[in-house]
Amino acid sequence: MRISELSRASGVPTATIKYYLREGLLHSGELTSATQAQYDDGHVARLRLIRALIGPARLSITTAKSVLAAIDAPEGPVLERLGRASMAVSGGEAEAEPAAARELVDQLGWQVEPGSPALVDLEAALTAIDEAQLLLITGGVRRYAELVQRLTVAEMGTVPTETPEAAVRQAVLGTILIEPLLIALRRLALQDAAIRRFGKQHS
Amino acid sequence: MRISELSRASGVPTATIKYYLREGLLHSGELTSATQAQYDDGHVARLRLIRALIGPARLSITTAKSVLAAIDAPEGPVLERLGRASMAVSGGEAEAEPAAARELVDQLGWQVEPGSPALVDLEAALTAIDEAQLLLITGGVRRYAELVQRLTVAEMGTVPTETPEAAVRQAVLGTILIEPLLIALRRLALQDAAIRRFGKQHS
Repeated sequence: MRISELSRASGVPTATIKYYLREGLLHSGELTSATQAQYDDGHVARLRLIRALIGPARLSITTAKSVLAAIDAPEGPVLERLGRASMAVSGGEAEAEPAAARELVDQLGWQVEPGSPALVDLEAALTAIDEAQLLLITGGVRRYAELVQRLTVAEMGTVPTETPEAAVRQAVLGTILIEPLLIALRRLALQDAAIRRFGKQHS
Repeated sequence: MRISELSRASGVPTATIKYYLREGLLHSGELTSATQAQYDDGHVARLRLIRALIGPARLSITTAKSVLAAIDAPEGPVLERLGRASMAVSGGEAEAEPAAARELVDQLGWQVEPGSPALVDLEAALTAIDEAQLLLITGGVRRYAELVQRLTVAEMGTVPTETPEAAVRQAVLGTILIEPLLIALRRLALQDAAIRRFGKQHS
């Protein structure tokens, strides 16, 4: 198909498609003349993927590019690819090992690579909760950790093993696309819980 | 205390404190001369709160200002204040009612105000999951919703009722500060789950 047909099939404007082509997020079509290229269903699927990454997951073009590169990377065992992709999502290796976060993951028995950027995020979250003197639910941070872990074990179970490409794609998209889902569901559930607790009709 | 002492007590640089004063995030000190003001423990606590909002929760100065305004708002029943604060966090009222998200919350029996911005976020998350053809865990989106709901009922239970100020503060900070905690924990738990499933030593 031509670029105009690709635009119709994917719902992405032609100018945006050209931008993705220039930035290297989308692979070129097959040139049929000096000014025309042919695109296929692979391009439609890729555009869907790009839209998913920079839409609700709100990744920057640069981060989306690294994530796509990690998905595309043609070599290495699955675990290594997952590591590279997760680094790309989180924005690079951490410099210092955050003490409170490391203590927590060790207590939980989680295997976490030194230098994981999410450890720095966890440390910042723990510090903020502490500084704001937020009242936590019974069980505290560990209760969140245990619930999250139950989910992630199930989530990792959905990762297909036929090809490393499919495995990395599912793991990376699972990481990225479920985050906005959880945040949106939590905000709505909090709204419901607030109405139930403080609303006029206590139900 | 003087601004230099406030800086030492809070760990926030003097220039940053002056910026927060200009932006109206921090209330002025008591003027003791034309060029000097006195600050107290209330200022130290407020600086902690500001840092918690714009640190790990990554709110913009403008959003932090709306959230603080919602916490400060001196009137209205608790539920109304919570509504205003949650609007401020999520960035304003939604324009069109998102169909798939509304159907889901109705099925779940959640009471959600029309125009809730989180409904739009949920719709975008559902669309992206669909477009990326992400494989979901058994139970799908409903399983996430049910787990999240169990947490939020417990979380809403931590909201104190002595004063409306304290209630709104805990509810708003709980919304904001637990989000980065959940995301960081989830990324670390996924790392652990990936090592367990794909690592050299299957444990």
